[in-house]
Amino acid sequence: MSHKKIAILGAGPSGLAQLRAFEAARKAGVENLPEIVCYEKQNAIGGMWNYNWRTGLDKNGEPVHGSMYRYLWSNGPKECLEFADYSFEEHFGAPIPSYPPREVLRDYIMGRLEKQDINKYIRFECPVRWVTFDDETKKFTVTVMDHKKGEQETNEFDHVIVATGHFSTPNMPYFDGLEHYTGRVLHAHDFRDALEFEGQDILLIGSSYSAEDIGTQCYKYGTKSVTISYRTQPLGYEWPDGISEKPLVTHFEEDTAFFSDGTSQKFDAVIMCTGYLFHFPFLPDELRLQTHNCLYPANLYKGIFWQPNPQLIYLGMQDQYFTFNMFDAQAWYARDVILGKIELPSLEERQKDEQQWLERHENLTDADSEIDFQASYIRDLYDATDYPEFEVEKQGEIFKQWKRDKKKGIMTFREKSYRSTLTGTLAPELPKPWLNIMDDSLEHFLNITLEKKSRSA
Amino acid sequence: MSHKKIAILGAGPSGLAQLRAFEAARKAGVENLPEIVCYEKQNAIGGMWNYNWRTGLDKNGEPVHGSMYRYLWSNGPKECLEFADYSFEEHFGAPIPSYPPREVLRDYIMGRLEKQDINKYIRFECPVRWVTFDDETKKFTVTVMDHKKGEQETNEFDHVIVATGHFSTPNMPYFDGLEHYTGRVLHAHDFRDALEFEGQDILLIGSSYSAEDIGTQCYKYGTKSVTISYRTQPLGYEWPDGISEKPLVTHFEEDTAFFSDGTSQKFDAVIMCTGYLFHFPFLPDELRLQTHNCLYPANLYKGIFWQPNPQLIYLGMQDQYFTFNMFDAQAWYARDVILGKIELPSLEERQKDEQQWLERHENLTDADSEIDFQASYIRDLYDATDYPEFEVEKQGEIFKQWKRDKKKGIMTFREKSYRSTLTGTLAPELPKPWLNIMDDSLEHFLNITLEKKSRSA
Repeated sequence: MSHKKIAILGAGPSGLAQLRAFEAARKAGVENLPEIVCYEKQNAIGGMWNYNWRTGLDKNGEPVHGSMYRYLWSNGPKECLEFADYSFEEHFGAPIPSYPPREVLRDYIMGRLEKQDINKYIRFECPVRWVTFDDETKKFTVTVMDHKKGEQETNEFDHVIVATGHFSTPNMPYFDGLEHYTGRVLHAHDFRDALEFEGQDILLIGSSYSAEDIGTQCYKYGTKSVTISYRTQPLGYEWPDGISEKPLVTHFEEDTAFFSDGTSQKFDAVIMCTGYLFHFPFLPDELRLQTHNCLYPANLYKGIFWQPNPQLIYLGMQDQYFTFNMFDAQAWYARDVILGKIELPSLEERQKDEQQWLERHENLTDADSEIDFQASYIRDLYDATDYPEFEVEKQGEIFKQWKRDKKKGIMTFREKSYRSTLTGTLAPELPKPWLNIMDDSLEHFLNITLEKKSRSA
Repeated sequence: MSHKKIAILGAGPSGLAQLRAFEAARKAGVENLPEIVCYEKQNAIGGMWNYNWRTGLDKNGEPVHGSMYRYLWSNGPKECLEFADYSFEEHFGAPIPSYPPREVLRDYIMGRLEKQDINKYIRFECPVRWVTFDDETKKFTVTVMDHKKGEQETNEFDHVIVATGHFSTPNMPYFDGLEHYTGRVLHAHDFRDALEFEGQDILLIGSSYSAEDIGTQCYKYGTKSVTISYRTQPLGYEWPDGISEKPLVTHFEEDTAFFSDGTSQKFDAVIMCTGYLFHFPFLPDELRLQTHNCLYPANLYKGIFWQPNPQLIYLGMQDQYFTFNMFDAQAWYARDVILGKIELPSLEERQKDEQQWLERHENLTDADSEIDFQASYIRDLYDATDYPEFEVEKQGEIFKQWKRDKKKGIMTFREKSYRSTLTGTLAPELPKPWLNIMDDSLEHFLNITLEKKSRSA
C-alpha cells in the first residue's frame, strides 16, 4: 500500500499543530505515516503571530495575512493557551506573568517547534491558487504559486487540511459619506502602530476585542481621544478620561462623523474594528466552508471534517476562547482519522452528532456557558487521542475569572495572575502597571519580570 | 454554426473598449456576433478611473483595484487620449483646458458609454477565480465568484480577453529596518488623500509618475516637506522649496531614514512610489503573461495575442504613453480576429512579427523614440480595422511637447494648452494656476473653465 499524501494549507498555529501531531506519531514509532506538504503564503511559520510591517498586499502581491500590531499584549491569560506538553515555565526557565506581549508568546510557540525538524515539510511563499476534488479517483488536485521559483505547481493529495485562519480578511462596512470623508480610514487588520495616531482624535467602529484592545492601546500611546461606536450595545467598561462610547455612526460629512444619538464630532482617523470574513478564494463552492464567526460552524463533523467530503479537514475555524490547545486537540484527532486509528462514522451519524452540538450551541446564554461549551468540545476531541491531559475545564474556569477581571478593570486586568494547570505555579505579578510598560520587546519583558523575581527571591 | 462565446475579464478602459468594439460592429450590421460576458470585480465600470475610499481589500475580501487618489489631475494632455469617435468638445459642449481632474476625465469616458447599452454584458462583483484551457475541445473554462449571489459560476468560452490592468498590484520593496520604523508606511496604491499628510515630513521612494505626482500634490495640499528618494537618477525638475531629492534609502532606524549619501532625516510617513506587478492569480502558468512594465511585453503577437494560444488575448498590457485610443486600436483588432475578418498567421510568422517589434523596442533611446514607437504600434493595429482616424502621430507630437513642457515647469505644466487632433480646437487656458485650484470636482472645474470662456467670448 502506498503512502497517503496530505496537503496542509497554512503554517500558522493550526497548521503547525497538524505538523506536530504527525511528528509526535513518528516519534512514537507509528509507521506508514503520510507524505506531508505544508503550503504557506508567508516566508516564515507562525501565521498571525508574525508581525508584518506591510499592509494590504505583500511583496508577492498576495493579501497580507497578519493583523498583528506593535505593542500588542495577549488579551487573555497565557494559562489558558498553554500547550499540554510544554509549559511556559519550561520554555522560559522560570515563571512569567500571565499576560505577555506578542513577541514573548511567539517565542513560546516557536520554542517548542525548534526542537522539531518541521521546516522540511513547509513550502514558503506558496499561496494556494485552486483546489479541486475528483469524485472518481477520490483525490484532491492542489495548485499553488511558488513565488520563490516564479512558477506554479500542481499535485494530488488524499487529504487537504485547510488551516488558513479566519482573522485575516477584513469585514469592511460602508457608511454613507465615507467616500468624501477627509481623514484616514483603515480596518483593524491594517492597524500597525499606535504612535501613528499620537495626538489625534480617532473613531473606532465596532465593539469587540479589536475595538477594546486598539482603543486602550492608543490611549496608552498618546492618542488624544478615542471614541468607540457600537451597533447594539456599548462595551460598558469603566473607561478613563479620553475614551468614550457612542452609538452607531449614521454618516460622514467631510471630517465629521454623525451618530444615531444626534451628536457629531470631527475625527482625524476612523478604524473599523468590524471583524473578519471567512475567505477561501482557492476553494470551489462544493468544498468551501461558509459561515460567520461562531463557536460551532455548521457542516463540520467534530468541528473539523467537511461533512459532504471528510477527506477535507478544516482546523481552527471556530471563534476562540481556547486557541493553541484547541488546535492541538483538533490536529491530533484529524491525524488519528487519517492514520485509520479513528474510524469516521457514516454521514448520517456524523450529521446527527453535529446536530447535537449545534442545538447545544444555539442555547448558549452567556460567556460562562460559551466557555463551558468550548471546553467540552475540546474534551470530546482529545479524550479520543493520546494528546496529553491539560485540564481544559480548569482552564475554562480561568477564562471565566479573566472575564470578571476584565470587567472590573479594562485598563488593569493585565496585572492579574493565574495558576498554570500544568505546573500548578501561580504566575508572578507584572512588576509595573501595563499602562506604564511602553517597551513591549521580549528582551525588556523578560528583563523586568525575571529580574524582579530574582530580587524578591 | 453556433455563436462563439467570449469572456472579457475586467470592465475598465480596456474591457470597455472591447465591449464598444463589438457594439460598433453590431450597429454596423455585422451578424453572428459572439455571445459576450464581461466579469468585473468592482461594482461599477471604469476600472482604475473609479475613486475608491477603500484600501487593501474590498468589501468582498478581494484586493482593491483602484490606485486613484483625491485631487488627481491628468498628468498628460487630454488631447493625447481623445477617442477617435468622440471628442471632449462634443462631450462637454465646449472646449475645456488640456489637463482635467480625474472626475472630468471619468465623465468623458463614461459619457460615450451612456449612449450604448453596455451594462447588460457586465457581471459586477464577479472576480475570476480560475481559468483553464482544454487542448481537446479548444475551450476555456472560467470560474468566477459571484459575490452578489454568494456562489461561484463556471462557464466555457472560445476566447478569453484579459483586461484586468497592471497598475493595481503594488510592487513593495523592503528596506532594512522597516519592520521597526515607527511612522506610517504605504504604497502609492493606498494613497488616498493628501490632507492626511498635512504638516508632515514625508518620504517618497521612487522616481517615476507616482512620485512626481504625489509629491507635487502633497506640496499643494500643505505637506510640510516632501523628499523623493531615487535609485539611479533624480527626477531633476526645478522643485519649489519644500520638495527635494535624495539618493536611495539604505535603511531605517526608528523614525529616521538613512540615505546612501550619508545623510539622514526623520519622517512621519513613507510612501513607496515603486510601481506595480503584473499579477494574474486566476491564470495557470501556461496562460500567464510574465513581464515587467515596458512598451512591448514579449510573448504577445501584435501586443495582444498570447503567442502559445492566441485564443487568449491581453489588452492594455503595455506601458502607456497612449492609453484609451491604444486600447481601442487593440480591441478593434481583437474583434476583427474573433469575427474572422482578420486571419491570424502561423505561429512562426507571428513570432517573426513580434521579434521585429522587440528588436525595435530594444533600440529605443529616449522618450521621443518611445513615443514614436508606440504611435507606430497603434498605427499598425488600426490601419487593419475600420477604427476611425485619429492621427496618432500628431498626438505623439503633443506627447513630445508635453515632455518638454513638464521639464520646463513641473508645478506649472498643467496650465499649458494643446490642439485637439480631432476638432482642431486649441484648448482654452486653465483660468488659474493649478496650484491654486484646490477643488477638483467636475462641477467646480466646469464652472471655472466654462464660465471663463463665456466671459471672454
